Amino acid sequence: MSESRIHNATLRGKIMSADEAAALINPGDNIGVSGFTGSGHPKEVPQALARRIAAASERGETFRVGIFTGASTAPELDGALFKVNGVSMRLPYQSDPDCRNRINSGDALYTDAHLSEVAQNTAWGHYGKLDVALIEIVAILEDGRLVPSTSVGNNPTWLDLADRVILEVNAGLNAKLEGMHDIYSVALPPHRQPIPLIRPDDRIGEPYLRVDPAKVVAVVETDCPDRDTQFSAPDENSRLIAGHILDFLQYEVDKGRIPANLLPLQSGVGNVANAVMAGLNDGPYENLAAYTEVLQDGMLDMIRSGKLVCASATAVSLSKEALVDFNANLGDYRKCIILRPQEVSNHPEIVRRLGIISMNGMLEADIYGNVNSTHVLGSRMMNGLGGSGDFARNAYLSIFMTPSLAKNGMLSCIVPMVSHVDHTEHDVQVLVTEHGLADLRGLAPRQRAKLVIEKCADPKFRPALRDYLARAEKSANGQQTPHMLGEAYDWHLRALKGESM
Amino acid sequence: MSESRIHNATLRGKIMSADEAAALINPGDNIGVSGFTGSGHPKEVPQALARRIAAASERGETFRVGIFTGASTAPELDGALFKVNGVSMRLPYQSDPDCRNRINSGDALYTDAHLSEVAQNTAWGHYGKLDVALIEIVAILEDGRLVPSTSVGNNPTWLDLADRVILEVNAGLNAKLEGMHDIYSVALPPHRQPIPLIRPDDRIGEPYLRVDPAKVVAVVETDCPDRDTQFSAPDENSRLIAGHILDFLQYEVDKGRIPANLLPLQSGVGNVANAVMAGLNDGPYENLAAYTEVLQDGMLDMIRSGKLVCASATAVSLSKEALVDFNANLGDYRKCIILRPQEVSNHPEIVRRLGIISMNGMLEADIYGNVNSTHVLGSRMMNGLGGSGDFARNAYLSIFMTPSLAKNGMLSCIVPMVSHVDHTEHDVQVLVTEHGLADLRGLAPRQRAKLVIEKCADPKFRPALRDYLARAEKSANGQQTPHMLGEAYDWHLRALKGESM
Repeated sequence: MSESRIHNATLRGKIMSADEAAALINPGDNIGVSGFTGSGHPKEVPQALARRIAAASERGETFRVGIFTGASTAPELDGALFKVNGVSMRLPYQSDPDCRNRINSGDALYTDAHLSEVAQNTAWGHYGKLDVALIEIVAILEDGRLVPSTSVGNNPTWLDLADRVILEVNAGLNAKLEGMHDIYSVALPPHRQPIPLIRPDDRIGEPYLRVDPAKVVAVVETDCPDRDTQFSAPDENSRLIAGHILDFLQYEVDKGRIPANLLPLQSGVGNVANAVMAGLNDGPYENLAAYTEVLQDGMLDMIRSGKLVCASATAVSLSKEALVDFNANLGDYRKCIILRPQEVSNHPEIVRRLGIISMNGMLEADIYGNVNSTHVLGSRMMNGLGGSGDFARNAYLSIFMTPSLAKNGMLSCIVPMVSHVDHTEHDVQVLVTEHGLADLRGLAPRQRAKLVIEKCADPKFRPALRDYLARAEKSANGQQTPHMLGEAYDWHLRALKGESM
Repeated sequence: MSESRIHNATLRGKIMSADEAAALINPGDNIGVSGFTGSGHPKEVPQALARRIAAASERGETFRVGIFTGASTAPELDGALFKVNGVSMRLPYQSDPDCRNRINSGDALYTDAHLSEVAQNTAWGHYGKLDVALIEIVAILEDGRLVPSTSVGNNPTWLDLADRVILEVNAGLNAKLEGMHDIYSVALPPHRQPIPLIRPDDRIGEPYLRVDPAKVVAVVETDCPDRDTQFSAPDENSRLIAGHILDFLQYEVDKGRIPANLLPLQSGVGNVANAVMAGLNDGPYENLAAYTEVLQDGMLDMIRSGKLVCASATAVSLSKEALVDFNANLGDYRKCIILRPQEVSNHPEIVRRLGIISMNGMLEADIYGNVNSTHVLGSRMMNGLGGSGDFARNAYLSIFMTPSLAKNGMLSCIVPMVSHVDHTEHDVQVLVTEHGLADLRGLAPRQRAKLVIEKCADPKFRPALRDYLARAEKSANGQQTPHMLGEAYDWHLRALKGESM
């Protein structure tokens, strides 16, 4: 394999085993790893590092590291390292059960952030010094440039900032990824220029990552697949939510506010988002474009059907079945898929310029339209903020969606007051559940409340929500956003006791 | 006066009295008025309209209008119209006592919004149809172009969108304002281009407003001063807050993160902000620039002293004394002050590109760094969001500041959980009170909590905050953001009863 994938002589001289590479990582190091939504993360060195950490632990030594990623990774990385309690600090988005448990038990600190801001925050040193970059790629060119893997994430920044670089060259991923990426570097102030991207399919950089070969301390050859992300077939609720959104987009087109081919789409991860894509694939719209974080099965279907003519993202995260198709037809997909650094895929400047239609899931919304995307009952971290804030704040349309009920109908996802705010009323324009869609644009809080209750809440919770609002309107110290702080969280307190809200 | 200030023959033919102009406004009209922080608002037609509304009310008729502004206005506008309960809907920022009372009594709906988004939201029709534009200017050129007044706000958008335009030509303001403005129009998606502004003093548009003369239904000549904004001399707390911020900026320079002349400054309104400017004026920094919403006394002092070499804003809002100086030396000030539409002065694209140092006041912050800028005890509107979100989300540094105590020491401005969230933990990097500065960048929530309590809270409230945090860490359902929802608002509930928190 070293001949076919590693064409640079200097770097070929640094090939070693995963265990040898992991030995170059020290206790206390901050490691910038590649990886976004289970794709493009290093697969073998993290597991070797976890073995080192477990061995140190058996000797009674403390060996912990800081892990900076693009977003969520997979069991070989977050799973392996958190199982051995080897991570002191993790940022930003995660979705691994072992990682989540360590965060919520207090074993690990978790610094969540808007995904577009992680690169600049690291460059400014806000997270401490970056010691190691551990990056998966699919090939090294003769001149030393790197062919990125199935995600870009913060890799350019990690490669720039780290003292030591470890590369995993993964022969298990398709070499035809070469040419799919567009690596553009955003300068720091006061040297920033306008980002010259005015269409989702504009290419503004080069398709390779660059690294100072003198910093590369190890090159590890691997042959591993990405995590496959399973989607369930759209259920009834997802289909209803998708239907409401499609009706609403048609309303926007009919009003003349957006073109017949809509505006570029951003779609969060998960089954509901995937169902919306399936709905769009069956819908009347042609020549669609996506400017999003993650390309999932639903968008790949739309590319195949010809509905989606281009998709810009920072990662490709597919099911096993979709991966087969992706690999078999990569030459074609490369013509319309562009993978960018997450600083660009999520950049507020671009999101606002393009006028994105942004669609994201949530845990709960309150009657005034504030959204909680991250914290279960106020304290417990689910996954993280991700790019939802990058998109929602600046989008043409910011849509948040969820089924109206959770936990077998015990919990209402529409509550009097959210237990944590990730997106304020000013950044939430549209709420959707299976029952309906609330178009909150331009409305004052009390108007929003009535609409959210009647359109989005499950009918069995509506009387209690109406009652809360009515009594708050009578008793609150001000009528802008009537609340009764003494009982605003009674619903959550019942849920904490295991009762129905 | 008509010869000296109104040089276009067609528009000269439309001169009439304020009462005649007000008669052209109908019940139910939405009116886009000029005005930002008490400057550049129309002064006579609103009062004439208030008289019409009062007369209708005496006849038992309902006469109410919607009022869209740039930001806050003055007694002649908000005061006059809200006194007669003539406003059904108001947006966005306000600070008038009569307006605030109508909002909090429920008489008027108030749709608050990020100031940079108001123009596009109106263009998309989210607030309903704009019937009338009522704009103050200081002169009309022979070709019909308009010389803007002391604020630009959303005037270009109001002039574009309204069916009918009423102009107030104010001879009481200095004609030498001509040339100070830079009117650049941001297109709607999918036609947006990069905004070609890379330095605060770049001029990218033309210094005049344009209007279709056929839409102008009235031109009213006025001779009135702007509202003067009084500042108190910096008190001890303000000086301490300013001192902490100056020390911190020096720390940033020493770290090499920002240049010796800092990065462009944004400063909110009010006495504390003004005190920070006074501190900077006495400090070591030279060749400073401002990219902000409102130019107040503090920045004018800095221009006069030569510390501030350019200031970009959307409004000039000065005290009586500063206005005298401003008018006497307008020829000089025009060389380094640029007034832009608020869509540009507050644009996320520019704020992020320039790497603004953003400093804004707040009502309260919680231990995790969430900020409430708007709602007193959760329900009662104070002023509004203003541009704080435009700047804080995208700034290089987002600083929020307040004295640690309010209401003669009864209330703590650092609380367990804010009663309303305008800025989430992810958008709040630095909190400052007279006691100290908490640099929250890169920290996980529990780390933030300890720092906020020890650096920012008043010592008499620290034990109770430490106790809340310690018990929450023992009992919460997750350790990412430990809270006890059952008592998170006990502090506010005591305050609602008139007790000390």
